Amino acid sequence: MNPATAQTKKDIVSACRILSHKKLVEGFGHVSARIPDSELFLLTPRIGLALVTEKDLLTLNLKGKVIEGKHPAPSEAWLHTAIIAAKPNVNAVTRIHGRVANMFSVTDRKLEPVHNHGSFFSGGVPVFHTPDLITTEKLGADVVRTLGDNPAVLLRGNGQVTVGRTIPEAVMMAIYLEEAAEVLFGALQIGKPIPLTVQESKQRKAEALPPVDLERAWNYFKNRIEGK
Amino acid sequence: MNPATAQTKKDIVSACRILSHKKLVEGFGHVSARIPDSELFLLTPRIGLALVTEKDLLTLNLKGKVIEGKHPAPSEAWLHTAIIAAKPNVNAVTRIHGRVANMFSVTDRKLEPVHNHGSFFSGGVPVFHTPDLITTEKLGADVVRTLGDNPAVLLRGNGQVTVGRTIPEAVMMAIYLEEAAEVLFGALQIGKPIPLTVQESKQRKAEALPPVDLERAWNYFKNRIEGK
Amino acid sequence: MNPATAQTKKDIVSACRILSHKKLVEGFGHVSARIPDSELFLLTPRIGLALVTEKDLLTLNLKGKVIEGKHPAPSEAWLHTAIIAAKPNVNAVTRIHGRVANMFSVTDRKLEPVHNHGSFFSGGVPVFHTPDLITTEKLGADVVRTLGDNPAVLLRGNGQVTVGRTIPEAVMMAIYLEEAAEVLFGALQIGKPIPLTVQESKQRKAEALPPVDLERAWNYFKNRIEGK
Amino acid sequence: MNPATAQTKKDIVSACRILSHKKLVEGFGHVSARIPDSELFLLTPRIGLALVTEKDLLTLNLKGKVIEGKHPAPSEAWLHTAIIAAKPNVNAVTRIHGRVANMFSVTDRKLEPVHNHGSFFSGGVPVFHTPDLITTEKLGADVVRTLGDNPAVLLRGNGQVTVGRTIPEAVMMAIYLEEAAEVLFGALQIGKPIPLTVQESKQRKAEALPPVDLERAWNYFKNRIEGK
Repeated sequence: MNPATAQTKKDIVSACRILSHKKLVEGFGHVSARIPDSELFLLTPRIGLALVTEKDLLTLNLKGKVIEGKHPAPSEAWLHTAIIAAKPNVNAVTRIHGRVANMFSVTDRKLEPVHNHGSFFSGGVPVFHTPDLITTEKLGADVVRTLGDNPAVLLRGNGQVTVGRTIPEAVMMAIYLEEAAEVLFGALQIGKPIPLTVQESKQRKAEALPPVDLERAWNYFKNRIEGK
Repeated sequence: MNPATAQTKKDIVSACRILSHKKLVEGFGHVSARIPDSELFLLTPRIGLALVTEKDLLTLNLKGKVIEGKHPAPSEAWLHTAIIAAKPNVNAVTRIHGRVANMFSVTDRKLEPVHNHGSFFSGGVPVFHTPDLITTEKLGADVVRTLGDNPAVLLRGNGQVTVGRTIPEAVMMAIYLEEAAEVLFGALQIGKPIPLTVQESKQRKAEALPPVDLERAWNYFKNRIEGK
Repeated sequence: MNPATAQTKKDIVSACRILSHKKLVEGFGHVSARIPDSELFLLTPRIGLALVTEKDLLTLNLKGKVIEGKHPAPSEAWLHTAIIAAKPNVNAVTRIHGRVANMFSVTDRKLEPVHNHGSFFSGGVPVFHTPDLITTEKLGADVVRTLGDNPAVLLRGNGQVTVGRTIPEAVMMAIYLEEAAEVLFGALQIGKPIPLTVQESKQRKAEALPPVDLERAWNYFKNRIEGK
Repeated sequence: MNPATAQTKKDIVSACRILSHKKLVEGFGHVSARIPDSELFLLTPRIGLALVTEKDLLTLNLKGKVIEGKHPAPSEAWLHTAIIAAKPNVNAVTRIHGRVANMFSVTDRKLEPVHNHGSFFSGGVPVFHTPDLITTEKLGADVVRTLGDNPAVLLRGNGQVTVGRTIPEAVMMAIYLEEAAEVLFGALQIGKPIPLTVQESKQRKAEALPPVDLERAWNYFKNRIEGK
C-alpha cells in the first residue's frame, strides 16, 4: 500500500477513537478522507466508530461507488461523496452527533462564536433544515450548498458535519464546534453574551488555524486515546 | 436449556450492563423479556442491575407468579407481568431511572421529539401520574393503559418504562428516550424548540427503527461494556 | 477489637469511597459513626476521604475529645460531636459537598421533593444560614437545632450534612439529597414543578426507607467501588 | 540539580496532571513557577499539559528569554514572564481553560463568590476584555494590571490565569475558580443568589487559605492522579 494511503487509514482510525473519546459519536457517525493524489476516498462502514479498524475502511470513488471493502456503506455515503467531490480543498469530513450543537440546530437561535475556539464559526454555523438522512445525490448537493465555505454545518436534529484540509483539522473542527456550542449555551443562561466581532474572529482564527496549533491539539487527543 | 432461552438470558445481562453503563440505572431498575414461544418471562431480581448474572434471573408466568429463581422478585414485578401479558408484540421491558426524562415527568411540559432519535416518541411520551410503585395487578393494568402503543411511559417522579419487540429494541428505546429528553431540555434553554412534525417523525422513525440500525447501536454498546 | 467496632470501621471506609465515587466529596468532607453500645464515635481525620483507611480513623468521646488516633481531627469535629451526642437515633453522619444541593443553599429557593427519592426531604431541606465552619460547641448545637428531625441540612455555601440510623442510611441520604436537588434543578428549567404532596411523600418514604431497600442501594455502590 | 529546583519541576508536572484530570486544560494551557531564590522561572512548552514531563520544561529569565530547553516556548510566554517579573509574592501561575468560568467571561455578569471556596474571589474576578493571545510584553503588562492583587483573571473568551505563593496554591485557585463559577452558574438558574458579604468572604478566606488546607486538597488530587 502507498505510504500516504497507509497514513490516511491510521489517521482515520485515530479520528474515530478521538471523536468517540470526546462523546461526539456513539453508535452512529462516520469519518471520510481523500486518498492523497487520487480520485478516491476512504469511508468508515456501518459500524460504531469506536470499533472501526483500518481493514474495515471502504474505498469509494467520486460517484459514490464502493470500489473496495467488505462491509456495507453507511446510508449517508452520499454526504461524504458530495462534499469530497465538490470541494478540492476539503480532504476530510466528520459526521458527528455533538449533543449541545444538536440543541442549537432545533431552535431559532444561531450558533455564533463568543470565544476563541469559536472563531472558526464566525458569522454563525449554517443549518440544513431538512431533517432527512443524506441518502441521495441531490440531498448531498443540497448539504454542500448549505455548507458553503464554512468548516461545519448543523443538520437539524440530526448531528453535524465538519470538514478540513486534513484529518486533524476536520476532527478539531468537530471538537471546537461542540465547545463553541457549550460556551454559548452557558453564556445564554448567565446574561447577555458578548459575541466576537468579525475582526476579532478573524484575528483569533488566524492564530488558531495554522497546522502547528491544530496538530498540538490532535497530538494531545491521540495520546489520550492511547492511554498516555 | 433451550438455546433461545440461553440467548435471552445473555441478552438480558447485556441489557443490564448497557443500561448501567449509560447511567440509566444505578441501585434500582429491572429488565424483563419473554421466553420465546412460551407463557413465561425472565425478570431481574432485587439486585442492582450492574451486578445481575444469568443465574440470578427469575422465571415468572403471566399471572406474576415466580416459577423458578432463588432471589426475591422486585416489588414491581406486576409492572412487567402486566405489560408482557397484555402486549403480544412486546417481548422485552426496561424499568429505568433516566435523570432528564425524570425531570420532564415532574413538570407540566410534554416530552416531545425535536430530533431524529426522538422520532420514536412522536406525539409526546405519556405520563403515569400516580407516583406509587407498581406493586399490584391493578396498577400494572393502569400503566398498560397509559403506555398504549407507545414505546415508553414516564412514571411521575419515579423513572420510566420502555418496551420493544426485542431486548435490543427496548434498550435502545431507553437510551433514545433519555437522549430525546436531553435534547429538548437543552433546546428549551436556548430558544424556541422546533418540533419534528408528525410527518417528519414518521419518516425518521421508519429509517431508524429497522432491526439493522437498532442492532448497530446495540452492538456498539455491547462492545463498550466488554471494554472494546 | 470488638467485631461491631471492626465492622463500623469497614463501613466508614466504604462510605468514604462511595461518597468519593459519587463526587459528593473531593479533598474535604468527613464521615462519622457511633461505636455500637458506647459513648464513643469514630471520625475521619483531616484527609481527603478517598484516601482514608481504617487505621486513620479517630475515636472521640461525646465531649469532642480525641481519645485515640494519630492524625489531627477535622476543624469541624464539633459538628459530628454535637449531632451524635444530641440524637440517640442517629448513628452515622456524613459531611459532604454535593454540587447541586450547594447551589440551592445560596439562593432563596427551598429544596423540596418532586420525585420518589426526594420523599425523605418532605417539607424542604432546612438551611443553616451562618456560613461559618462548625468549629465550636455553640455552632454545633445551632446546627443540631436547624437539623431537627430531618435527615439532612444545607450549610449555606458550604456543603451539607446527612444523618442516618446506620452508615448505609446516612450515605444513601447523601446520594438522594443530591439526586433530589438535581431533579428539582432540572424541573425548574423546564416548566412548573409538581411537588410531591405531604401524603405522597409519606407513602414513597415508607416504601423506600426500610433497611432492605437502602441496603440494596448500598450494596450496589459498595460493589461499584470494588470494581465489580 | 538544586533540590528546590528538582522539587519545583516535580510539582509543575503534578500541577499539569491535576489540571488535566480536572479538565481545566486539554490540548492547550501552561503552568509556570519561579525557581526558588533566582531570577529564573520554569515554563511548560507547547505541548498538551497531560503529556509534559520534567525534562520538557523550559527555563526562562525575567526578560522572557528561554535560557534552557529543547522545545518551542508557548506563544503566551509573555503572560508568565510579566506576572512573575512584576509580582514577587507570586511564585506560580496557571493558564487554564475552565469551561464555566469561560462562560462568565463572555457575558455582562460578574463572577462573584456565593460559596465558601468562592471567598478567594471576593469583589468579583476581573476580566481582561481584549481577546488577543498574550504574545507581547505590552499585553503581558496589561494583564498584570488587570490581575492586580487578585488570585485570578478571566481572559475574555479565552480561559483564565490563576496565581499563587506556591504551586499548590495556584492550582487550587484554578480548581476553586471553576467551582465558584459552577456554583454561581447554578444558583442563577434556581433563584436569586445570596452573595457572600465582604466580611463573610474575609473570614471564609482566612480559614481556607492557610497552606495546611490548600495542601490537604493538593495531596488529595495528587493521590488521585497517581491512581490512589
